[in-house]
Parts: sequence; C-alpha cells; structure tokens
Amino acid sequence: MVTIEEVPTRRERKKHQTRQALEQAALRLFAEQGYERTTVEDIADAADVAVRTFFRYFSSKQAVLFGDVVTDRVTRLRTELAARPETEDPVESIRIVSDQLDFSDPEDEAEILARLDLMRKQPSMIGRYLELVNEMRLTMVEFVAQRSGTDPARDMYPLLVAGASAAAWDTSLTLWAASGGQLSLRELRRDAFAALSAGLPPPPAARRR
Amino acid sequence: MVTIEEVPTRRERKKHQTRQALEQAALRLFAEQGYERTTVEDIADAADVAVRTFFRYFSSKQAVLFGDVVTDRVTRLRTELAARPETEDPVESIRIVSDQLDFSDPEDEAEILARLDLMRKQPSMIGRYLELVNEMRLTMVEFVAQRSGTDPARDMYPLLVAGASAAAWDTSLTLWAASGGQLSLRELRRDAFAALSAGLPPPPAARRR
Repeated sequence: MVTIEEVPTRRERKKHQTRQALEQAALRLFAEQGYERTTVEDIADAADVAVRTFFRYFSSKQAVLFGDVVTDRVTRLRTELAARPETEDPVESIRIVSDQLDFSDPEDEAEILARLDLMRKQPSMIGRYLELVNEMRLTMVEFVAQRSGTDPARDMYPLLVAGASAAAWDTSLTLWAASGGQLSLRELRRDAFAALSAGLPPPPAARRR
Repeated sequence: MVTIEEVPTRRERKKHQTRQALEQAALRLFAEQGYERTTVEDIADAADVAVRTFFRYFSSKQAVLFGDVVTDRVTRLRTELAARPETEDPVESIRIVSDQLDFSDPEDEAEILARLDLMRKQPSMIGRYLELVNEMRLTMVEFVAQRSGTDPARDMYPLLVAGASAAAWDTSLTLWAASGGQLSLRELRRDAFAALSAGLPPPPAARRR
C-alpha cells in the first residue's frame, strides 16, 4: 500500500522495512497469544528492535493495527475523488473510486484480512474501525457537497449519499472478512452499491420463514 | 427518557436525582469552560457530591456525556422492534420504531441538543457517538436477520438495511443539531428514510453550479 513515486533512499527503505517488521510481528503475536496479552515489549522483541524504536513508528499497540490503514485510505480516497471529472454524478464517482481503492496485491489483502479478523475477535478494536469508516464518510460528504453545490448543514443530499456509500463499504468488507477472503471484495462492493442505489430492497421472500 | 414501570422507591428517586444533578452540572461546565478544562472534581463540586460519588454513577468524564443515552436508546430500540408484528416488512418496522423513539419531552430534546452540540465542538467525543450509532445498527442487523430468516454473515440484506437505516438516523440527527433544534427531528428522519428507500438520489440539479 506504500506508493513509491521516486526511488527511495536507503534510509527510507530501512524505515519501511522496520515498520513492516513491527506490523508483521504485532499481527502474528496478536493472533498467537491474543491482543490483550501482547505487550509493546513483546512486539519490539519479536521485530528485534528497541521499545524506543517501536514508539518512533507507532503511538500505541492499537496504532499498529489500524494507524496507517486509516491515513492511507482516507488520503487516497480524497485524492482520487478530486481527480474525477467535475460533470460526473458524485455517486458514480464514489463507486468508481471505490473500485480503484481495492487492495492492489494479495499480500495487502492477506494483511487486511488478518486485521479485520483480529478486530472481530477483539471488540476493543472496533472503535478504530468505526473511526476509519467515519473518516471515509466525512471525506465523501465534503466531496459530494462540493460537487453538487449543496450545503451539508442544510441539505440532506451529501450526508445521505456518503452515509449509504459508507454502509456499502462496511457491508462488503464485513461479508468479505466473514468469507475468509473467499468472496471477491470488488464484487461484494459493487453489489452493495447497486442494491443501495436501487433503494432499500424488500426482504428476500424465498428465504422468509 | 427514564421509563418508570412501577412507583420508584425513595432510594431510587434519590439516585436518579443525583445522577441528573451530575449530568446537568457536567453539561453546564463543559459548555462554560470547555470539555478538556473541566475535571471530574469540578463536576462533583458543582453537583455538591464527593468525587467518589461521581464514580459510583459514571466511569469517566466522557461517560457523563453519552453513557445512559447509549444504553437507553439501544434497549428501547431492541424492545420496540421485537414488539412489531412478525409479518411486517422489517424496513417498515424500523421506520415505525424510529418515530416512536423520538424524544418524548422538550427537556429531553434540549439535553440531547446540548450533548450533540458539545460533540461537534469536541472531536474527542465523536468516538462515543460512533459507538452509539454502531450499537443501534447492530441491533437492527440482528432484528432484520431474524425477521427475514437471513444469515448476516452470508447475505447482504440485513447489513445493508441496517447500514442505510443508521445513515438515515445519523443524517437526521446531524441536520437537526445543525438547525439548533429548529427543524423537526421526526420530519427529517422521515425524509431521510424515504430518500434511502427510494434509492440513492441524483444530485439536486437546481443547485448544481
């Protein structure tokens, strides 16, 4: 998920490696011995760095789980939305950019799955996930308001579109994680957007008791 | 917002009064001198109780802002949804119960407005609000899954309906708070549900630049 625009210096490569080693050690330990029982010392030890080094990269144990993901995703969402044509329907722009934000390689995908899985086992982590979804949503509110020339403090349109889009995001991520990554995140997200665009569906009659 | 099923004992009335005094003192101090600069000691002093007493009612300064609201609302949502007829469309049930959950008296309304207003000025409060909306959403997921006989780990229907309903809730509360309580929360919520039921709308053309 790191976008390298120019050839990184040796120092930058080293920093990236250390950060990755810390993240991987943390995820492994959280899965093996549980999040609560894993200390920052354990993580630093497993990545073979000093505790002081850990805190140069992450502000807390919780930040290892979601810190970068939040910043990366929100920044990319904002940038790619801004790049869409001014005349495009904002809902369509959000749909297209959602596709572009898919995880670009299988390693990313496995890492995100591990994070989502931990979160489901670890209710105290849900706050960070809710913040991520909320930051995505606020970015969409701002975009839709700007593109449609509406005031989000007086007109429902930006809040509704962003709220429904965030619901489509969350729904597809949740079902994808529940399938252990077997389903296609992209297809799930498309289905979710299509369903909400068409309006709240009636209950699936065939499955009613 | 306290539902009194039976005549409360003197002890219960006294507890209710103390809790209310603490809440009112906290909201007043947060508004007057800011949330960050208000200590638990200040709140206890203003309500004329010991700090130890404060902690018998609230686990933290943040809990005064949203503690009870969360528990009350989620409990009422669950109870009132369960009371809807089995044959009703679950989306319709959620809409009807949303109306019933409106604040029942002007005092409640003023208090909720004060809380929302503080939250908007106090970004660190937003986590609690997100948790409230999420707990409402999860309650709706459970209800829709049960009533439609679908599995929320495999079928989008419950997550989508609950996600869109939570977005309608959040949208109406946000616009209501932005209007300083001048708009009707009930009408805003109805409009939000109606819009999402009809499908994601195109941008309001008249207002496009």
